[in-house]
Amino acid sequence: MLFVVRGSILHRITPQLLCILLLSVLVVAFHGQLLHHKITLTAVPFSLVGVALAIFLGFRNSASYDRYWEARKLWGRLLTDARSAARLAVTMTDVATARPFVLGLAAFVHAARHQFRGRSGEDDLRRLLPAEVADEVLSRRFAAMAVLLWLSRWVREQRDAGRLDSVLAMQIDQSLTGLNDAYGGCERIAYTPLPFTYSVILHRTVYLYCLMLPFGLLDSIGVMTPLMVTFVAYTFFAIEALGDEIEEPFGTSPNDLALDAMSVNIEASVRELLGDRDLPAPLRPVDCVLT
Amino acid sequence: MLFVVRGSILHRITPQLLCILLLSVLVVAFHGQLLHHKITLTAVPFSLVGVALAIFLGFRNSASYDRYWEARKLWGRLLTDARSAARLAVTMTDVATARPFVLGLAAFVHAARHQFRGRSGEDDLRRLLPAEVADEVLSRRFAAMAVLLWLSRWVREQRDAGRLDSVLAMQIDQSLTGLNDAYGGCERIAYTPLPFTYSVILHRTVYLYCLMLPFGLLDSIGVMTPLMVTFVAYTFFAIEALGDEIEEPFGTSPNDLALDAMSVNIEASVRELLGDRDLPAPLRPVDCVLT
Amino acid sequence: MLFVVRGSILHRITPQLLCILLLSVLVVAFHGQLLHHKITLTAVPFSLVGVALAIFLGFRNSASYDRYWEARKLWGRLLTDARSAARLAVTMTDVATARPFVLGLAAFVHAARHQFRGRSGEDDLRRLLPAEVADEVLSRRFAAMAVLLWLSRWVREQRDAGRLDSVLAMQIDQSLTGLNDAYGGCERIAYTPLPFTYSVILHRTVYLYCLMLPFGLLDSIGVMTPLMVTFVAYTFFAIEALGDEIEEPFGTSPNDLALDAMSVNIEASVRELLGDRDLPAPLRPVDCVLT
Amino acid sequence: MLFVVRGSILHRITPQLLCILLLSVLVVAFHGQLLHHKITLTAVPFSLVGVALAIFLGFRNSASYDRYWEARKLWGRLLTDARSAARLAVTMTDVATARPFVLGLAAFVHAARHQFRGRSGEDDLRRLLPAEVADEVLSRRFAAMAVLLWLSRWVREQRDAGRLDSVLAMQIDQSLTGLNDAYGGCERIAYTPLPFTYSVILHRTVYLYCLMLPFGLLDSIGVMTPLMVTFVAYTFFAIEALGDEIEEPFGTSPNDLALDAMSVNIEASVRELLGDRDLPAPLRPVDCVLT
Amino acid sequence: MLFVVRGSILHRITPQLLCILLLSVLVVAFHGQLLHHKITLTAVPFSLVGVALAIFLGFRNSASYDRYWEARKLWGRLLTDARSAARLAVTMTDVATARPFVLGLAAFVHAARHQFRGRSGEDDLRRLLPAEVADEVLSRRFAAMAVLLWLSRWVREQRDAGRLDSVLAMQIDQSLTGLNDAYGGCERIAYTPLPFTYSVILHRTVYLYCLMLPFGLLDSIGVMTPLMVTFVAYTFFAIEALGDEIEEPFGTSPNDLALDAMSVNIEASVRELLGDRDLPAPLRPVDCVLT
Repeated sequence: MLFVVRGSILHRITPQLLCILLLSVLVVAFHGQLLHHKITLTAVPFSLVGVALAIFLGFRNSASYDRYWEARKLWGRLLTDARSAARLAVTMTDVATARPFVLGLAAFVHAARHQFRGRSGEDDLRRLLPAEVADEVLSRRFAAMAVLLWLSRWVREQRDAGRLDSVLAMQIDQSLTGLNDAYGGCERIAYTPLPFTYSVILHRTVYLYCLMLPFGLLDSIGVMTPLMVTFVAYTFFAIEALGDEIEEPFGTSPNDLALDAMSVNIEASVRELLGDRDLPAPLRPVDCVLT
Repeated sequence: MLFVVRGSILHRITPQLLCILLLSVLVVAFHGQLLHHKITLTAVPFSLVGVALAIFLGFRNSASYDRYWEARKLWGRLLTDARSAARLAVTMTDVATARPFVLGLAAFVHAARHQFRGRSGEDDLRRLLPAEVADEVLSRRFAAMAVLLWLSRWVREQRDAGRLDSVLAMQIDQSLTGLNDAYGGCERIAYTPLPFTYSVILHRTVYLYCLMLPFGLLDSIGVMTPLMVTFVAYTFFAIEALGDEIEEPFGTSPNDLALDAMSVNIEASVRELLGDRDLPAPLRPVDCVLT
Repeated sequence: MLFVVRGSILHRITPQLLCILLLSVLVVAFHGQLLHHKITLTAVPFSLVGVALAIFLGFRNSASYDRYWEARKLWGRLLTDARSAARLAVTMTDVATARPFVLGLAAFVHAARHQFRGRSGEDDLRRLLPAEVADEVLSRRFAAMAVLLWLSRWVREQRDAGRLDSVLAMQIDQSLTGLNDAYGGCERIAYTPLPFTYSVILHRTVYLYCLMLPFGLLDSIGVMTPLMVTFVAYTFFAIEALGDEIEEPFGTSPNDLALDAMSVNIEASVRELLGDRDLPAPLRPVDCVLT
Repeated sequence: MLFVVRGSILHRITPQLLCILLLSVLVVAFHGQLLHHKITLTAVPFSLVGVALAIFLGFRNSASYDRYWEARKLWGRLLTDARSAARLAVTMTDVATARPFVLGLAAFVHAARHQFRGRSGEDDLRRLLPAEVADEVLSRRFAAMAVLLWLSRWVREQRDAGRLDSVLAMQIDQSLTGLNDAYGGCERIAYTPLPFTYSVILHRTVYLYCLMLPFGLLDSIGVMTPLMVTFVAYTFFAIEALGDEIEEPFGTSPNDLALDAMSVNIEASVRELLGDRDLPAPLRPVDCVLT
Repeated sequence: MLFVVRGSILHRITPQLLCILLLSVLVVAFHGQLLHHKITLTAVPFSLVGVALAIFLGFRNSASYDRYWEARKLWGRLLTDARSAARLAVTMTDVATARPFVLGLAAFVHAARHQFRGRSGEDDLRRLLPAEVADEVLSRRFAAMAVLLWLSRWVREQRDAGRLDSVLAMQIDQSLTGLNDAYGGCERIAYTPLPFTYSVILHRTVYLYCLMLPFGLLDSIGVMTPLMVTFVAYTFFAIEALGDEIEEPFGTSPNDLALDAMSVNIEASVRELLGDRDLPAPLRPVDCVLT
């Protein structure tokens, strides 16, 4: 595992690491002197600030991962609530009546996905929704909410037609409310990043720390300084870069959530409840990465 | 990112950092002597207390961030429950009947926002509520609750008018209960700060630590003392100041929640469910800060 | 903030700090000798045990704070569920019918508060409940539960009288169940402390550590020993004392929850839903402390 | 608090501490030589491994405490859901009809308690359940579930008898579902321990660390080695032993949950809702320990 | 406990430990020289990077354990919701009518289990489901969902047959929704691993650290280097290997969840509600491991 490339974020931090390496080599070459003045640093202040640095890196890392995992949970709730709504609709009315509703559930998920990735998603919506509904939905600012409103209207129609009583209608509606809540949670994560100041403080501290470290280690480990400084810098930079990446879990970098694959899976899952057998095939990883 | 100004809280801690810097320079200039007595400090006690300090700074930081994120979640619940109530009202009655109710939901959110920011919010309430309701609401101590009571009365009226049966009425009411709970949670965060003693202990420890640190580092790093002490102090002060800021997430400092923008978004979102197309425009950041 | 007194717990740990200070001065005066034998301690073992100590202090601190915040959340749920029950009762019946029920909700909160603070609360119960109900309630071991049973009976009566159907009755009852759950959660926190052994281990470790520390620092920092040892001891003792205080959040020490103020606020909030304008005034802090 | 015995787990780790003390004394006596070869250890590797050790002890400790507190929450839910079910049964039917149901709720709690402590609990079940029900229940593998099934049948009977309609019946049933969930959660904690490997790794690391520590400290603190090594070992062993104890919170060691006392309290609480005044007395601590 | 084999993961890391040991011995033998050049490393950089390493190992470990415990909770929810559905079905209809439904609940759990372990599970499904249902289910991509759809159809049939009204039917359906949610949660954990990059960074850091450590310790502890380096490496490798193992809790390694035993237990538990006495026997551990 020491030499794998997949999932590595080494390529993102290579320039910085090379800078640090070069600086360390220069420090060794000039014996820690800057303009003929010896920089009198030892490892002591680095050990003082290192504990704090590690704890704050740890905090940032945990906060980023919590965002990632919460986003995954919310997307999982889209799956489970879509399945519940589809199951109830199919069971409590019949397959033919429920078909547009179930396809609409898939459309809702695709609308949410395309919104978070900044795409229009017109193809998926036109494919799954009746034409006039798709037109209406695509003209709205909150497309996914418009789909949900249309799904809610379907429930109302079944109730008016006597196919569902109020109790059953409200049970189905609870799954729609679940979809609404999960979608709102995803909006929260997508549009409220971690306070930007965290990144600024951490970034500055990590870089200053690594830039001054060669002077601090030179007297105690001599020519090994470049190696160890680069090693320390790798640890800190890599964690920081990974935090940056998973902090916005709806993006398309390699460590982000595979929204496309998950949405296709949701569509397949609810369509199978209709008895369909021509389900969309699961997406396959491209270069080990699932988008 | 080393030189950005946006989101930086450097300006808040500049005076303290300059004091520390000045002190360090004096310590170097006087060779660590105070009234001709050498202050015999080494880095050892700082490393003992530094671990504890970092852990407690970490705790305070996490607790502040948890408050920030919980507040964001609660405000997100205002959005999702307002949408659910609006969607149900529009679907289960009709657009014309639901209009005052849906505008009332937006009024509820604005009332909550203005309360937490210490403003009357009369404009927004008069804009969205019928005149006599606005008068009544503005004369109350808990304005948002008065709006909610009026929304609840609307549900009762629809039920008396036969447009909703009890099951549907209670389903809508559950979203109102959700709004009530989210609002109560925001009150909790707004009016119960972190125990003040935490700030006192941390503040004292951080400042004493940084004030004595120059004496502790002088013998080992000499003229580099001011640089490193300021670096250490920057790390600690910045984290402490950021914790201070996000601990009260409903304020108006740059890292607080963008309540204004989020409330306008909620209003736009529920009004679109009425079919409106003249939605309020999303707020834009001013100097990179969204309020 | 370095010199504020409010919220400081310095007064609680002053005796211990003075002991440590005195001990340190003696250690310096006798050059670390005890019965003419030099105590050969260095900072090394303190740094080994210090990391563990800081982590366990951190754990205890977090666990105490979690109890504090969970208690606050539960009390907040008393507020929100009381409001929901009051709002539903007022809307679904009428103000006159709902009045005893709404006052009973306030009585429930006061009964809970007085129980956790070890007071009878007879005044508040007699003020808010009908006389014979108050007698009955006060003769019971679980007074708050007796109030809740009476509130539940009111719901039954409205249903028998045809003012509420089963669906509405059960919706109100869900808020009563919420009150029941929040009250049960408060009992859990009030009557199950942190395992006492945690305090014992921490207390012993912190005191032994600080008692031996002067010997460990003497050789490296000489006459500065008393200052630094007292500083280290202040950090550890203060965190420990604060943990002790907020671990039992229903007490009446300055950092505990302001149960009295919050209960008055709940009463005012639910009575305003009845249209009352003679609401109880919010409590004001006495010596900066709200009880 | 330095000398209390209650809640101390010193007695559990005394043998190990004495071994470590003896070893340290021998190390001092033989000047750190083993078979005339000096063991050249310094504190450096201990400080490297010490940070890791402290963090993993901290993790294990937190995980154990989380299990303890989750178990307490689940048991608290048994209390609140039993009260809710009892309150609804008493209010919505009448006291005489509800009596066997309410006693059955207490029987359910006792059945769960005895199961987790490996006792049959026949006394409590025969005391609270009708004879033929008790026979049936005691012949089952999952006794508590059999009680719950019988409680559920009572609800069905009241519905068949016209005393409850479906809505009320399902409201009561939700509390039974709550009891079911809390009981299932307790089973989860009781029958799925922490992965055993954690204990193995920690145990080995802690013991090896403490066994080698005397050699590492000898050169720097000489005759104080036994004292400091025992101090370090006390901290680590005590935390480890406490983690061991509260990891299985349903046991009967002094720091485990007071299941007996809590179950008697639940019985008293639900019986008071029947109007009973001959409630079982609260259990008193024996030797400061509540079982 | 120092010498147990059960639950130990020593065997998984033995090759790596032997490599490290061999390397250390070589370093001692060659006096830390590589090609006649002395590698001038001290412990200082290791202490700098060690704190960061320990914190990230701690993070990864916590994240893995959280996945493990969340998976356990979700599986526990399968148990409780299956029991609730079975209890309601048995009580609200009758034992004979409910039998296929209750066996279907067990089939759902087995289908989920076999899916997560990559087996077809045809035996269990044919044993518990009617033949034509089993055929249908086994031809589907999401077998467990097909079972759930069939369970939902049973509820519909009882309602059509007048044995359940809508309220009761929806109460049973809520348990099915609970099963659906728990199953969806398990899919989330099974198919979304921790971001792979975490493992890569940690793996690289841990191995580089341990490979360079002998050079860093040689000068200070001499011939004890191999012992201490192996000790440090054991701690780090063991935690990393355990994290790897419990990160995928549905696997079949010794520390994974005992899905087989738990599923048999769920089947026994719901079948006992039917009055069956020929329950499947609990699985027994094989070589101390329960699968």
